[in-house]
Amino acid sequence: MKQVDLLYTGKAKSVYRTDDPEVYIMKFRDDITAFDGEKKDTLGGKGSYNAEVSSFFFRYLEENGIETHYLGSIEPATFAVRNLEMIPLEVIVRNVAAGSIVRKYPFKEGDRLDPPVIVIDYKSDAHHDPMLNDDLIYALDLVTPEELDQIKAMALTVNDVLSEYLDARGIILVDFKLEFGKYNGKIVVGDEISMDSMRLWDKETRASLDKDVYRFNKGDVMETYAGVAKRILSPPREESA
Amino acid sequence: MKQVDLLYTGKAKSVYRTDDPEVYIMKFRDDITAFDGEKKDTLGGKGSYNAEVSSFFFRYLEENGIETHYLGSIEPATFAVRNLEMIPLEVIVRNVAAGSIVRKYPFKEGDRLDPPVIVIDYKSDAHHDPMLNDDLIYALDLVTPEELDQIKAMALTVNDVLSEYLDARGIILVDFKLEFGKYNGKIVVGDEISMDSMRLWDKETRASLDKDVYRFNKGDVMETYAGVAKRILSPPREESA
Ligand SMILES: Nc1ncnc2c1ncn2[C@@H]1O[C@H](COP(=O)(O)OP(=O)(O)O)[C@@H](O)[C@H]1O
Ligand SMILES: Nc1ncnc2c1ncn2[C@@H]1O[C@H](COP(=O)(O)OP(=O)(O)O)[C@@H](O)[C@H]1O
Ligand SMILES: [Mg+2]
Ligand SMILES: [Mg+2]
Repeated sequence: MKQVDLLYTGKAKSVYRTDDPEVYIMKFRDDITAFDGEKKDTLGGKGSYNAEVSSFFFRYLEENGIETHYLGSIEPATFAVRNLEMIPLEVIVRNVAAGSIVRKYPFKEGDRLDPPVIVIDYKSDAHHDPMLNDDLIYALDLVTPEELDQIKAMALTVNDVLSEYLDARGIILVDFKLEFGKYNGKIVVGDEISMDSMRLWDKETRASLDKDVYRFNKGDVMETYAGVAKRILSPPREESA
Repeated sequence: MKQVDLLYTGKAKSVYRTDDPEVYIMKFRDDITAFDGEKKDTLGGKGSYNAEVSSFFFRYLEENGIETHYLGSIEPATFAVRNLEMIPLEVIVRNVAAGSIVRKYPFKEGDRLDPPVIVIDYKSDAHHDPMLNDDLIYALDLVTPEELDQIKAMALTVNDVLSEYLDARGIILVDFKLEFGKYNGKIVVGDEISMDSMRLWDKETRASLDKDVYRFNKGDVMETYAGVAKRILSPPREESA
């Protein structure tokens, strides 16, 4: 399998075609953006940390029976994925109130959301990712009711699996964003699962271990990404003691 | 039953207590606002037209088996209602794409939405009425799943009844907003059903017959309100010929 040509360049990743039409190569660049593209930087090493964590979590989800687009690692910041027909939804699962939900609604930062809250945005830079509801999703013909049920169920299963994994390493999965796509008519998890797409807090100190460090200048972004990547790729705390 | 003291002053109506704790008096003022309060005016007569149309529709809904807060007319711009424990939701039913839905999502103005789309906003001036989804409604403890099902079902029934009524008078019910409240634990339709809360288009010319005339300076607001009130209170076109 050989990389052929650049298919598209997103805000943080580039996707390449290969000589196998079913396989794409996804390169995690060092670009980081926030606030609908208003804040932008390039941080050396960021792409590798996010790719490493994403690869790890996609393999871990597969081991736990959740299908993803992941095919295998190629280079530190690059892995192979299935060519998916992407569904333009950003599926956000929230376990703890933080970020936009606290600014928009009367939740207090840190409020436990139990059961978790799913919020789905329309993935469209041109429309600034507006929030959807089920009726709007059907009216826009984005997915069928059966597909939406499946997407929500998968998102909640991913949440259970990742929350437990991170909790064992002293990390709270506050919220995260998933994208889904179709492959042979089947819905699978696509895109990335990284420090750019998850909100992670240290269980003890409640310190941010994710892109919020970049958004709100909370400290050294690359030090944070390196540290949390190491914790995620390490055995649970009990065993590592 | 005697008006006692002013309970609260909203953007367009004032609510008074009476000597009967179960009964409030609702006065439709001539104030009109738009764009989250940024545009404001006072238009002589507006309150009466909206109260007249609201009274008429509340009675018409009751005749069609839908419970409302309406108790009876008092003066042209004033009627008596049951004291409801209001539910802070703005329940919007859309039959045709227009207004915010066209600005936020890839719908074209005039697109038929079939089935109708329900969008629910959190009624809070402080939070600028942000859009909700079902998960958020439960997390904010605004209503139970059973109550939300009932609210949506009632909203769709109101839509059927009003759409048919207006259609017979050459008017398209493009969209409208309802508020609900509880009385003895029962959910009923509250607030108003007027040219301020409905988007109405002439079936032939597609001209706006509602607050959009004020929002977008489309013509003489009071002439429009007077004309549409008269059409709404008249027999259907076939019979009036
Ligand atoms: N398996 C896949 N097949 C095709 N496209 C994908 C796949 N996984 C993710 N994508 C898309 O590739 C792009 C990833 O680049 P990214 O920088 O995240 O873009 P964006 O700025 O749109 O978020 C996104 O548009 C994402 O939807
Ligand atoms: N039956 C009722 N009992 C109590 N309050 C009501 C009832 N019907 C409507 N209300 C409330 O009365 C107020 C009406 O005034 P309005 O000018 O529309 O206010 P707002 O600026 O909040 O929209 C609203 O807050 C509405 O929720
Ligand atoms: Mg992306
Ligand atoms: Mg009002």
